[in-house]
Amino acid sequence: MKGYVFHGPGQSAWEEVPDPAVKEPDDAIVRVEAVTICGTDLHILKGDVPEVRPGTVLGHEAVGEIVETGGDVRTVRPGDRVLVSCVSACGRCGYCREGIYGQCRGGGGWILGHHVDGTQAEYVRVPYADLSVYPLPGALADEDAVLLSDIFPTAYEVGVLNGRVRPGDTVVVVGAGPVGLAAIATARLFAPERIVAVDLAASRLRAAKEFGAEAVADASEAPEQLIADLTGGLGADVAIEAVGVPETFELCARVVRPGGHVANVGVHAAPATLHLEDLWIKNVTITTGLVDTHSTPTLLRMASAGRLPTRRMVTHTFPLDLMQEAYDVFGNAAETGALKVVLGVPQHEVVPVHPTV
Amino acid sequence: MKGYVFHGPGQSAWEEVPDPAVKEPDDAIVRVEAVTICGTDLHILKGDVPEVRPGTVLGHEAVGEIVETGGDVRTVRPGDRVLVSCVSACGRCGYCREGIYGQCRGGGGWILGHHVDGTQAEYVRVPYADLSVYPLPGALADEDAVLLSDIFPTAYEVGVLNGRVRPGDTVVVVGAGPVGLAAIATARLFAPERIVAVDLAASRLRAAKEFGAEAVADASEAPEQLIADLTGGLGADVAIEAVGVPETFELCARVVRPGGHVANVGVHAAPATLHLEDLWIKNVTITTGLVDTHSTPTLLRMASAGRLPTRRMVTHTFPLDLMQEAYDVFGNAAETGALKVVLGVPQHEVVPVHPTV
Repeated sequence: MKGYVFHGPGQSAWEEVPDPAVKEPDDAIVRVEAVTICGTDLHILKGDVPEVRPGTVLGHEAVGEIVETGGDVRTVRPGDRVLVSCVSACGRCGYCREGIYGQCRGGGGWILGHHVDGTQAEYVRVPYADLSVYPLPGALADEDAVLLSDIFPTAYEVGVLNGRVRPGDTVVVVGAGPVGLAAIATARLFAPERIVAVDLAASRLRAAKEFGAEAVADASEAPEQLIADLTGGLGADVAIEAVGVPETFELCARVVRPGGHVANVGVHAAPATLHLEDLWIKNVTITTGLVDTHSTPTLLRMASAGRLPTRRMVTHTFPLDLMQEAYDVFGNAAETGALKVVLGVPQHEVVPVHPTV
Repeated sequence: MKGYVFHGPGQSAWEEVPDPAVKEPDDAIVRVEAVTICGTDLHILKGDVPEVRPGTVLGHEAVGEIVETGGDVRTVRPGDRVLVSCVSACGRCGYCREGIYGQCRGGGGWILGHHVDGTQAEYVRVPYADLSVYPLPGALADEDAVLLSDIFPTAYEVGVLNGRVRPGDTVVVVGAGPVGLAAIATARLFAPERIVAVDLAASRLRAAKEFGAEAVADASEAPEQLIADLTGGLGADVAIEAVGVPETFELCARVVRPGGHVANVGVHAAPATLHLEDLWIKNVTITTGLVDTHSTPTLLRMASAGRLPTRRMVTHTFPLDLMQEAYDVFGNAAETGALKVVLGVPQHEVVPVHPTV
């Protein structure tokens, strides 16, 4: 079959690789019908995630059809249409027993396209299939469902739930890329008073407004002042970091009010400065996290009911074998206006949610 | 009257100051019977808390007798023996209404010996008396009660409760000074599996064992390894920072397990490095905070019932007018073996809990 293989920083290709096979009795083999590319894949290609070994097929998000299962798999069978979650779960370790699947110590966690071959391929072996794929309701199109592999649960759990967004809150989302936009959309479920999106790109700030931000601020023009003005000088109740660089994390820590929450979602490659000389007295809670995907069933129901703006996130579609082109479009989002690119679904015209001009 | 006045970094004296008087209808004047010195007072003297104006009487912990009240004070009257809390609360602002008294926006919070004259004096004016002093049960001696003005609620709320210590946890307490020891003592109330104390001073580590630590580690001898060994390589469930320097905070962030909590209690004067390149994926929760003293009534009941090791913390006692001597003993704890020094109570022989030789 064909798969998109990481060969070391800056080197990757859509190329022939061995077909995956059932290796463990709880494995399932999934024929990939829809797959997307994550900002984390770009981090891997840059060399920011050094534990990914050259030779690994990338990708941790997919919708597909079960074609084979190991003898211990109970909840799905060949022919089932499923969502492949970015997080696999052994179900047996101490973390899994508490629902903290992202920290699975039994061989799961974020393994697809990280420690084992991933979903950017024609077929993928999914370990621990019973707890790592979700049968899909027929009403939900591949193109919508595939966004629930990672970015929607990540934004919701690591951003909105960790940040404890409550009705009436002022929520600042720093970074209006796909995860930031999904954070805006899922923060709205908690009826905040306002969401303020911060980004450097005017096009992304326009997208943030479409996804539900009431106010937007250019990151280069002292967003602290706007946030102070909006909150009577107090600061944000919740600041969600959805970029992954020190500056944006430090901005979140500056704009949060006493007693507020900073929820880090971004994948970081470098340390940040934590201004404890200001923060020690401020009752601030800072969280980090990998998604556990405990919310995936809930989000699938919400998406099926049309309560999540999944489709608006998909700016570009490609056939599966145009993987490199899809990476080029996604990796140059500033020029192409890409939010999420989805491969393997019926092609439709590109209608960017945020025209770049 | 006499009071201990801050005159700028490195300058302070026990000297004549004007008697305090009722200025607002919710003020009370308290005659100080017992007072102690906090590590935070030492920070102020060093210049680490620049908002303290020269001329301010220091101190935010006391037991005393109400001698006068303003017309609006309802819950105490002259003659009542009370605990003066380190945190005053207006009771009317948004923070007070949520019990977050430390962040009071109505003129309270930590004000005594910070924004207004404090308790290291013969008399002190306590604003918002109804919510800022606590009538004391007769069974509780001054010497025990005064430790509930600040260090016990601080260690309990900002360390143990923020850190969400649970039965079976491994709790690391970095810094075995008075607040660290109070964190050890109050963490024990939640039946952790073990408490590991980390400090540089062997005498403090001996004290930590007396207060309930099962294991101790010299901070200079790679405590990370001991903690890893004790936890199957996983790390601590909760790490409590009770020093206030970057190195100890960074140690806490290194030794906490995925999904664990770092509770910062220390008063910091400089930024720390937050290694988000390691932590982003680890589901770590970091909290900071000033004590709210919402736990003070509970801790008073616990202390009255003999469930808190308050007395063991008091290594030195002085008459009130030996304030400078008391500062000298407390500020040179490494040599004197001082934990808490209490002024104004009956003198007793010094019996250090941790002999320095």
